[in-house]
Amino acid sequence: MERIYTADIKEHLGERVRLVGWLHRLRRLSHVTFLILRDAKGLAQVVVEDATLVAKLAELHNETVLWVEGGVRAEAQAPGGVEVHEPVIQVIAPSHPPPLDIFRPAIKAPLPTILDFAPLTLRHPRHRALFHLASASMQGFRSTLREMGFVEIQTPKIVGTATEGGANVFSLDYFGKPAYLAQSPQFYKQTMVGVFERVFEVGPVFRAEPHDTPRHLNEYVSLDAEMGFIQDHTTVMACLTRVIMGMVEAIRVEAGEAVSLLGLTLPEVLSSIPSVHFADAQEMIARETGEDVIGEPDLAPSHERWLSEWARREYGSDFLFVTGFPMVKRPFYTHPDPHKPGYSNSFDLLFRGLELVTGGQRLHLYEDYLAALGARQLSPEGLESYLDAFKYGMPPHGGFAIGLERWVARLIEAANIRETTLFPRDMHRLAP
Amino acid sequence: MERIYTADIKEHLGERVRLVGWLHRLRRLSHVTFLILRDAKGLAQVVVEDATLVAKLAELHNETVLWVEGGVRAEAQAPGGVEVHEPVIQVIAPSHPPPLDIFRPAIKAPLPTILDFAPLTLRHPRHRALFHLASASMQGFRSTLREMGFVEIQTPKIVGTATEGGANVFSLDYFGKPAYLAQSPQFYKQTMVGVFERVFEVGPVFRAEPHDTPRHLNEYVSLDAEMGFIQDHTTVMACLTRVIMGMVEAIRVEAGEAVSLLGLTLPEVLSSIPSVHFADAQEMIARETGEDVIGEPDLAPSHERWLSEWARREYGSDFLFVTGFPMVKRPFYTHPDPHKPGYSNSFDLLFRGLELVTGGQRLHLYEDYLAALGARQLSPEGLESYLDAFKYGMPPHGGFAIGLERWVARLIEAANIRETTLFPRDMHRLAP
Repeated sequence: MERIYTADIKEHLGERVRLVGWLHRLRRLSHVTFLILRDAKGLAQVVVEDATLVAKLAELHNETVLWVEGGVRAEAQAPGGVEVHEPVIQVIAPSHPPPLDIFRPAIKAPLPTILDFAPLTLRHPRHRALFHLASASMQGFRSTLREMGFVEIQTPKIVGTATEGGANVFSLDYFGKPAYLAQSPQFYKQTMVGVFERVFEVGPVFRAEPHDTPRHLNEYVSLDAEMGFIQDHTTVMACLTRVIMGMVEAIRVEAGEAVSLLGLTLPEVLSSIPSVHFADAQEMIARETGEDVIGEPDLAPSHERWLSEWARREYGSDFLFVTGFPMVKRPFYTHPDPHKPGYSNSFDLLFRGLELVTGGQRLHLYEDYLAALGARQLSPEGLESYLDAFKYGMPPHGGFAIGLERWVARLIEAANIRETTLFPRDMHRLAP
Repeated sequence: MERIYTADIKEHLGERVRLVGWLHRLRRLSHVTFLILRDAKGLAQVVVEDATLVAKLAELHNETVLWVEGGVRAEAQAPGGVEVHEPVIQVIAPSHPPPLDIFRPAIKAPLPTILDFAPLTLRHPRHRALFHLASASMQGFRSTLREMGFVEIQTPKIVGTATEGGANVFSLDYFGKPAYLAQSPQFYKQTMVGVFERVFEVGPVFRAEPHDTPRHLNEYVSLDAEMGFIQDHTTVMACLTRVIMGMVEAIRVEAGEAVSLLGLTLPEVLSSIPSVHFADAQEMIARETGEDVIGEPDLAPSHERWLSEWARREYGSDFLFVTGFPMVKRPFYTHPDPHKPGYSNSFDLLFRGLELVTGGQRLHLYEDYLAALGARQLSPEGLESYLDAFKYGMPPHGGFAIGLERWVARLIEAANIRETTLFPRDMHRLAP
């Protein structure tokens, strides 16, 4: 007999089925005992009436791996409307007594303890569900971009040059030479526009930022895309809008059970996400809040929240593009706005109060790169092969990067981004 | 007018079209000039008859980015049977004179030079095509596993413990604590069997092996899978067979043009890949070659080649499973063969003379892990949270890892694995 998943029991009413999974919980009531079995897809209620069997099960610890055969019956009172009767049960693998209860609606422990015991605590259905959201999101990201002709690339994570400034970079010894962990695939994805025109990459990025906040990780998963032959940053924004739609749709289709389990309301993605220029956003904030923000080079977190609420109110949108950030706060490869000195052809996408995506148009002419580096008193040393791509003909191009964990954190409105990371890395956490 | 790709010109016979791309080559014949335009999908022949325009084009360097509008005509002599006439041409971005000719059938330079100029040399259609194979392979890997209920995970690359022995590991300073780059996601994917039952990951792995050979990379992309509730390693082999089929099929469907361009014959994947036990393989090698291999704990590269040729001859198969490798050469988490002392429930998959995949069944009982570590005089220190997963109930499980670059290298029978890596990392190469 083939094993079936708990989620499929209801299709086998009146039949005998074989289940395998973990002893989630044993509920001993006065007249009957329920064995709750957990597998990858959900939970099943197994009714145990035989006193000898109950006594045997009572000796097992939760998380014991079991093999269960039994008959499926409808039972309105049971979770899912079905239960398994007259079970034959075998132990596949025993468990030590778990230090935390996985069967409770929420694990009763502070977050650091939950993270310390990740191989156990991730088994909790609500914790596990977050990573179904992440898995579906990656699928939606990739499939949407493939449909648009993007090619998937893999670029090195050990690099000879710090890409985004030297301060926040992890260093290592590479056969006697200094090397760094990639802070982003930015340079590589740009040069690959000269090869494939449109590329994407899903991979780890490393930031040695000494920030100990609920928003920071020192290693995270970046969903990167870059495309050539664009008009300007608005072409990139249109592409990103389709990608976000594709990610939400993939979650709806592929992770529907996780969505119900978590009681989530998925965001509506308008086919034209509202957009506001940085300068207009500042004027609006100044006018409405009385804060003196005009001339500030960036948005404070409170301003991102204010703008998100405004977009929600005005347009019913969970998303808002802020465009044209001042050049002074953007990296050297940013393309300026040709019509508005000091401002750039860049954008942030805010999602529920937080910046989720940064993107924009990049410089594409070699001479512009040299000038941009010079103006910032940066040396082209170590950037030669990156700059070469622009020497040998590069079209106008741009792209964006989405932080996977931040995306999931905003979807579930998590208090701490570590909840949405299987094995987070922060200043204090290197294990598990 | 919307830009079309060169590959789609033939669908626009008699129409005017807009193309964008790179000046691949200008061929000035006595009576006519051909501008060969390259874009992401291929090449187009543009016929230039106007003398003024020819003179202007002659001043441009190859790799200049161009915008071309012209009329499409059938022409049996032209590549693809069509060409573009009466063009209007604009320069989108100029190019410096390229140091290497991208338009020749092969780039005339030694491999190190080709790698040094990667942002340029990867534009060569034959070089670029290899990464269409890689992109399609990743897609096939993932989609086949998703169909089988596998969940995609992302695990950390900065780790506190060296997973596969301490010798070949890159070290780094992590906020004052020693840390390492992950040599594989082995421990994490195993513990995640306790959560999702079936998981996969595509990501970088790092090996500080000081080997300077055409087969070694110090950073490569590993296609990892791990599954629970298996019978033994043969369940894993059946899964891997489907995955390899899915990868070949994805290449056929998604990278068909790359396959034709490279003139590849894709391997046949038999629904039951032939399999030989390690001990029987040794006996056969001893008998047929006269080499004294009986009792050796591993296969030499020459034996892998011999066995591959044998499988080709006997079964018409490009693939061969070798099973049951001696325990002594396998890592501590390897499950022994319960019926054959000294041998393991593991396998290698040989592909065209080389080991492509290593996999097998793992230990799943906590006490077996402690015993295995003890027998090898390894300390459980640093492994606590990995071992915890086995303390709290873990089913029989196993998995495998495919090296992406090695896969592509075998597909094209590359002389050097660096050819199949966008930006290879070896002992001497840290840039680009």
